[in-house]
Amino acid sequence: MEIEEFVRKSLGEWSSMRSGHSLAFKHFEEIVSDIKIKLISQNDPKFRDFITSTGYSEDQAVSPFEIEWEGHSNWEETGEIKDKLRGQSLLIPIKQSSNSGIILRSKGYTEAREAKSSYQILSDGTIIFLTTYEKTSTEERIWFIHQNVRCRSSVIKSKEMNAILQTSFASEIRKLKQ
Amino acid sequence: MEIEEFVRKSLGEWSSMRSGHSLAFKHFEEIVSDIKIKLISQNDPKFRDFITSTGYSEDQAVSPFEIEWEGHSNWEETGEIKDKLRGQSLLIPIKQSSNSGIILRSKGYTEAREAKSSYQILSDGTIIFLTTYEKTSTEERIWFIHQNVRCRSSVIKSKEMNAILQTSFASEIRKLKQ
Repeated sequence: MEIEEFVRKSLGEWSSMRSGHSLAFKHFEEIVSDIKIKLISQNDPKFRDFITSTGYSEDQAVSPFEIEWEGHSNWEETGEIKDKLRGQSLLIPIKQSSNSGIILRSKGYTEAREAKSSYQILSDGTIIFLTTYEKTSTEERIWFIHQNVRCRSSVIKSKEMNAILQTSFASEIRKLKQ
Repeated sequence: MEIEEFVRKSLGEWSSMRSGHSLAFKHFEEIVSDIKIKLISQNDPKFRDFITSTGYSEDQAVSPFEIEWEGHSNWEETGEIKDKLRGQSLLIPIKQSSNSGIILRSKGYTEAREAKSSYQILSDGTIIFLTTYEKTSTEERIWFIHQNVRCRSSVIKSKEMNAILQTSFASEIRKLKQ
């Protein structure tokens, strides 16, 4: 599988059940979210402005897409937590080989700032993203278990302490194709 | 990675946080378990009796091991549920290539009876088990994110309805090496 196919398979509206595990505290977090994933035209000013700001050229981009999410946690939803549960991010894949490359993100997953992830796609179609932020690094994995069901796991590590802070797992069901 | 190394890396006592997602009902289940994984000698009568009963020969087995688990769910723990949360299983890998083969299980994961899983190990070390039971089929994945931390996911499908019944994800931390 190549990145264009991964993006194509991900388009549409998804309902997500996500569990977070805080390993040090044996604490479980539960979040139910709605997620929308759609292609972005390479003529869209959002696309042009963001890729220009990164120093990459428009010709290098394949299948840019946007993710929008809105979630509800079992934790108290106030201020910062509530803000973390909704958002959107523009993602621009840049291929370096048929099954690997980088993804530019206008907003990161673990820290809400621009980020650059590397990705590789395994022989069974699982895609693995690695992202290094200022204080943390994250590994995300996504694999399809049905054309309308995908699994997504993440591991967040503290760079300073070299410790695993949190793992998470989401089961996502597509409600609508784009 | 080959199966012997996977077994070697898994030996010891683990503390597991596991989340189950019932997709149809958007229901979350949380289980905290203790898991012990130990090698079994090929001279152990348990090993000899079980492999003889399967029709495979002792020479084909590599790194037979035993898993013992005891869990505590957030669901009401009575009768059948309580029994499901504790148990042990003898597992005997049989290699068919350097990164694939089968695993004989004295007790299955989804249905509590003898089972035969196929396994394959991906290029990043992730191991995938496929098991077909009478009414369900299960895909399990295990991958190490640190020498003392592993992730384990499962997907349970109903064969009759061709539906995904449940997914689960466990974060497991090793407390003691064997």
